[in-house]
Amino acid sequence: MQFMFKRRDNIKEVEEGKYLSPKFDENGLIPVITADFKKGDILMHGYMNEEALKKTIETKEAHYWSRSKKKIWHKGEISGFVQKVKEIRIDDDQDSIWLSVDIGKGASCHVGYRSCFYRSVPLGKIKDLKNLEIEFKEKKKKFDPKKIYKDEPNPTKL
Amino acid sequence: MQFMFKRRDNIKEVEEGKYLSPKFDENGLIPVITADFKKGDILMHGYMNEEALKKTIETKEAHYWSRSKKKIWHKGEISGFVQKVKEIRIDDDQDSIWLSVDIGKGASCHVGYRSCFYRSVPLGKIKDLKNLEIEFKEKKKKFDPKKIYKDEPNPTKL
Repeated sequence: MQFMFKRRDNIKEVEEGKYLSPKFDENGLIPVITADFKKGDILMHGYMNEEALKKTIETKEAHYWSRSKKKIWHKGEISGFVQKVKEIRIDDDQDSIWLSVDIGKGASCHVGYRSCFYRSVPLGKIKDLKNLEIEFKEKKKKFDPKKIYKDEPNPTKL
Repeated sequence: MQFMFKRRDNIKEVEEGKYLSPKFDENGLIPVITADFKKGDILMHGYMNEEALKKTIETKEAHYWSRSKKKIWHKGEISGFVQKVKEIRIDDDQDSIWLSVDIGKGASCHVGYRSCFYRSVPLGKIKDLKNLEIEFKEKKKKFDPKKIYKDEPNPTKL
């Protein structure tokens, strides 16, 4: 699965070495956390393949692997909401990535909100797991997805 | 795969409805981003199954699914570095979770650092992809993993 980056030869090197040697899963993907570089809040959770990671490093704009479209996805290519990458971090076993990005006054979420994480789950004893109400933390959309995406298929899958 | 929480019956409800209806993948897992509730920096990236998510909501302490041990993992059960959950957010299509946690003066990373994301990837044109040097952003470990974990197997896989 892994060809472009350094081979993962031993655990000590992966964890404490100085080379990028990311682990891609059985689908050739690595999970990516995307956060606002100033506010620190999480904007989205996505995936990259090798090519998307290389493009992100080199162009300093976030590229993902779209699992719904099955192709490289330059974030913002339709909406214009490009993510300018300020920093990329890799974790201990190099199987996940944290992107810090600048989205200006833009948005990250295809539903129209600034962050994809616009709803909060209440904590504590659960009465009815099948009807657990969540709370909207973003009250207002940043854009109208119908105007921006027009006839694009919705990436959400059941 | 999904039994405990509300069924995912239609996309509109998943995206804009008021019920928790998380999507677990073909292994019964959902990816989890864990961030510090005050500083906002990312501490780790993990996975939960249904049971771990339920336990996390109810106990307000982070529980994950350990893919290496193949069991529910109450974070801190060995190290003592429990994660007190301050908020749980769910994303638009409800297939990833953002936990905001309080770790006090503790650490999150089995290698000994505060955050698992202690190394940064340089941005810009890459000269040699197979020898791409990354930079340590945390200089000092918070604890000695040999003392804390003793004979526990290392969860990192090549």
